[in-house]
This record gives sequence, C-alpha cells and structure tokens, in this order.
Amino acid sequence: MTIKDVARLAGVSITTVSQILNKKGDRFSPETRQKVLAVVKELDYKADYFAQNMVSKQTKTIGMVVPDITDLFFSKVIEGVEKHLNELGFMIILCNSNHSSEKENLYIEELLHRSVEGIILASPNPIHLPKLKNEDGSNKIPHILIDRGINKRDEGQLITNEFQGAYEAVEHLVNLGHREIGMLSNETSFYEITDRFYGYKKCLEDYQIPFQEEWIVSKNLTIKGGYEGAQQLLQQNITALFCGNDQMAIGAYRAINEAGKQIPKDISVIGYDGLEITDYLVPSLTTVAQPIFEIGYFAAKFLIDHINNPKEKVPNKYFDTQLVLKNSTKKLDSF
Amino acid sequence: MTIKDVARLAGVSITTVSQILNKKGDRFSPETRQKVLAVVKELDYKADYFAQNMVSKQTKTIGMVVPDITDLFFSKVIEGVEKHLNELGFMIILCNSNHSSEKENLYIEELLHRSVEGIILASPNPIHLPKLKNEDGSNKIPHILIDRGINKRDEGQLITNEFQGAYEAVEHLVNLGHREIGMLSNETSFYEITDRFYGYKKCLEDYQIPFQEEWIVSKNLTIKGGYEGAQQLLQQNITALFCGNDQMAIGAYRAINEAGKQIPKDISVIGYDGLEITDYLVPSLTTVAQPIFEIGYFAAKFLIDHINNPKEKVPNKYFDTQLVLKNSTKKLDSF
Repeated sequence: MTIKDVARLAGVSITTVSQILNKKGDRFSPETRQKVLAVVKELDYKADYFAQNMVSKQTKTIGMVVPDITDLFFSKVIEGVEKHLNELGFMIILCNSNHSSEKENLYIEELLHRSVEGIILASPNPIHLPKLKNEDGSNKIPHILIDRGINKRDEGQLITNEFQGAYEAVEHLVNLGHREIGMLSNETSFYEITDRFYGYKKCLEDYQIPFQEEWIVSKNLTIKGGYEGAQQLLQQNITALFCGNDQMAIGAYRAINEAGKQIPKDISVIGYDGLEITDYLVPSLTTVAQPIFEIGYFAAKFLIDHINNPKEKVPNKYFDTQLVLKNSTKKLDSF
Repeated sequence: MTIKDVARLAGVSITTVSQILNKKGDRFSPETRQKVLAVVKELDYKADYFAQNMVSKQTKTIGMVVPDITDLFFSKVIEGVEKHLNELGFMIILCNSNHSSEKENLYIEELLHRSVEGIILASPNPIHLPKLKNEDGSNKIPHILIDRGINKRDEGQLITNEFQGAYEAVEHLVNLGHREIGMLSNETSFYEITDRFYGYKKCLEDYQIPFQEEWIVSKNLTIKGGYEGAQQLLQQNITALFCGNDQMAIGAYRAINEAGKQIPKDISVIGYDGLEITDYLVPSLTTVAQPIFEIGYFAAKFLIDHINNPKEKVPNKYFDTQLVLKNSTKKLDSF
C-alpha cells in the first residue's frame, strides 16, 4: 500500500495526500481532506518516509561521519550518540571516512543530498566548512563537530580539558620521582594531542625538568602506532612513558616487553581515554579517563536541540578528565 | 531549490516532475517532458532523495542491525559491509540492538518504514522472521543474516567452518601434550559457539581424552566474560584453555596473571577470531583466525545482488579458518 494508491483511490495527487497527512493541507477543502483521510483509514495506510517527508522534510535521520568505526574511542562515541537519538526516534546514517578529508567531504555532500536533518562529524582534520556553511556564514545544515576544538568556533564546542588531564598524568609521574618521561604523540596536527602535548610540556617546565625533543615520538593513535613509537622511545633513557591514548599504550606494553623490560618495575606507563580494556591489561593501565559515551550523547543532544530551535545558540560543553590510578606506575627506586 | 520549485515553474505537479526525472514519464507529452527538463537544467536542480525516490523507491540505503557496535568483531564486519556499499553509492542506517531481540524487532520495523532497500541483520538470536517475511514465506524485504547459521535456511548462508577451526585449535593443544583442556564458551545458544564447542568435544573424543563437564564455563563473549570465566576455570587442574573468542582470551590473560600463573609456561591459551590486537598481547595470542572483514563484504555483496536480481537464489558462502600460531601455547613439560 503506497501513497500512490491512496492518491488514486481518493482521486487527488500524491502531493495533496502528503500535505494533508503532514497537517499542511489547510488550503484544501474540508471535503478533500475528509476523502483522503477516509481512504487512509480504510487502507490502514501508514505513510512511508518518502511520502511523508517530501513536504515536511522531517526525515528523522541524521548523518554521522567518523574516521574509523573499529577504533574503540569512536565506537563508544557512536554508542552515546545512538542512545540519545534512539530515544527520540531518530536514526543514524553512518559513514566511515577512513581518516580521509576527501572522503569526509564526499560523505557530507551525499548526506546533504539525502536530506538528513543534521550531521555529526567526528574528525581529526580541519574540516572544509564550505560543505557545511553557506557563503553568508549561515549553516547549510545543523551540525555538531566532534573535533576536540581543532576547528575554531564560538558555539557547539564539545571539549575535554585535555591540557589538565595530561598535566595531571605527567605530574603524577614527576611525584613518583620520574624525570626522564617520554611521550607518544600523534603525527597529525590534532588539537587535542597538541593540548595533551602542551600539558606534558608545561608540567615539565613547572617542575624545572628540561624538555628533550627526543623524548617525543609521533605516530598514529593506534595499537600499532604505540608499538612502533615505544620501540623508538625505548632507545632513550626514559623511566616513564605518557601515551597519547590507551590504544597506543597497549602497543607500548608489547614493545616494552620485547625490550626485556617490566611495567612498572623498569618503566611506568600512563594512557589516555579510560577504555574498559585498560582494567584488564597486565598490569592494569593507569589512564586519564574522559567521558567518551557522554561526548557522543551531548553531541546528539545539542544537534537535536539545534534542529528544533535553530535560532538559539548551541551551547558549549566542557568535560573534565580523571586520572585513574591502577598498576602501571611506580615510584622510582632512586627517589 | 526543491522539487516544488521545479513543479511550480514548469506548471506541473510534483509527481510529474518526479516521474520524468526517474525516466518513468512515458505517459507525459514530449512538451511536458521538455518543459520539466528545461526548468531542471535552468535551476541546476539535483533531485533530493525524497523526490527522486518517492516513485522509484530506490533509496540506495540499506539498514544494518548489530548487537554491539563497540564489539571488535562487529565493528570489523561493518567495515567490510561499508567497503562494498560505498563503492556502489549505497549508505548504511546503523542500528545497535544491544543484544536485545525486542530492539532488533523494533529496528527492523522502523527500517521497513523508512524504505531501505535491504537489511543486514547481525544477531546472536534466533530471529523473528515474521518481521522479514510475508505470510506466504516470501521476503518482505531483501535481507541477509549474519547469524552464523542459527536461523536455518537454504540460501544466503554466510558460515565460517567453526567446527573445523575449533577442532584444529584443540588438536594443536593435544599435540603439545595437553589433556586437561578447559573451554570458555557462551551462555546463550549461539550456534557458532555450539559448533566451536562440538569441535572441542569431538577432538577430545578422537584422542580418547575423557570430557569433563567442569572444564567448560559459559560466559558473555566479552573481555569481562573471559576474565570471570577464567577465574572459575582456574579452580580446575587445567594446563590449557581454549577461548570462545579473542576478547574472552584478553580477559583470561588477566585472570591467569592474577592467579600467579604465566602464559604459556603454566598454561597454554588459544583464542578465536584473529583480531589484530592478538598480535600485541604479551605473549601474542595463538588464535583461530576467521575472515571477519570478508564476511561483512560478502553480506553486502549478496544483499545488493539480491536487490538487483530478486528472482535469483542467494548463494551460500563458507569461510575457512586458519590456526595462527603465536606465543601463547607451549609443549607440556611432562610430555
């Protein structure tokens, strides 16, 4: 049973049926409206999305672009996004950009073409805003960025206090007597990694520990990246390692083991994110936890609120981190 | 610029525009067609999906339901699905069922309502096929199940040879001299886990090792499930452990360490799936690899082929496993 059948039986056009069902049929006569509604009732017709939305444009669909769906951080963000959308009857068209700016753009274009009501874009890249903005600076489509602040804007920021999180992690190491502290950072210009890096650097500075260029290695934020980065860093005389994220720390564990060293006896390690898996590593990983699920949840909430109230400013939201002490750090013997 | 503008300027109905753009406008006069196409050209109008598809019903969208998007197995399956769909310009509406049959059903209903062209349903549950089938047994909508065979059917099966995979894993342990071999299984009635269990059992039988009920513990197929299950199994005098999946093995590693035992010195461990992370565990995990990405890829391929050729039978596809030897197993000292 389609809208075509309803239109045919009521002797009106599809547009007429659509507008009446969407309560935009004021311009039609009461007779026409009654005729259409009677057929709808008789056929037990439930408008499908295409018919229903051709006029109202309420597709109850949002697009979401992430760099990698198999990344434990982003899959947790998606879970948070879905939690809120699901409660409201919205669905997600999910797109995997594979960390490519070009693919992000293609997906955004395709999503615009598909009349999604809004877009959540999680990206490690500076985003080509022209795809999302009109020439006059207004939004082409409501959108929220999960970019940790890399794209400057004064509303709709969802930002974890990364500087503070990193600072506390490194300070913890310093308080345990470590002065040779390496960092696994990221080779792209991620703002958040930059912020984690600044937290690291500022802490060393505050404790008058000279900063050493060779204590920083930049790699992908993956297990493999952490493994390769740690192999390189272990050439240096470091007694502690602050990792750009938990996945890097998992790779670092392996590299440290292969180098014949033990955690935390020979080297202390701290991760970042607070993934569940860190509880199960041997030893369990001390990590800077951030509320990943909540970041997704609020991205969805702010987007839907913005769709419903397009004239109101989108709020900013700042999330705090928490240093979760487990078993991968140890007081330096000589301290 | 919407289809309404085109219709208004051409002086025809929206349906007329839609049908002409979808090359279903044979019944209109050449003049009408030319008028519409001229306006379309003038406005540089690209039909949006709702207008374009109201008639053709080609939404180029498929729905996909998975039990848990943060599960490393399912996120890899999604990656495979997207790889194929992406090449063809299809997009995915992704739904997270949270392992709930009820939620699966709600999502399927919602997807049907949204005119997706097909559904991929990854589920650990016997599926309520009435949602997907008409009363006469025909399909309500093209669909592919990634259920590892739990729902019986004679076409569209995507099945890994789990029995063989499990058998080879256990045989490897037996060949290393192990006779006290525990298994971390799953508490639901997963067919594949059952098949893995049968492979385990048959191998013991073939090597005349008496099967012991208390060597089997059933838990969730998660890191936490593996941790709890292994804690329980370590009460038994086992020298080797076959895990229902790699994620369980990660949890088992932790439990074994807490029990003061070393892998593989005191206990040999084998996982199942072949996740990338198994290379980085300490020690690296011997595992039964299955082609997870390919399973997703073929699910998408078979679905699209079926959408395009609805009268042809959907093929079955069987995937082989491969025992990947790493460093978590060892010949029994006494052997």
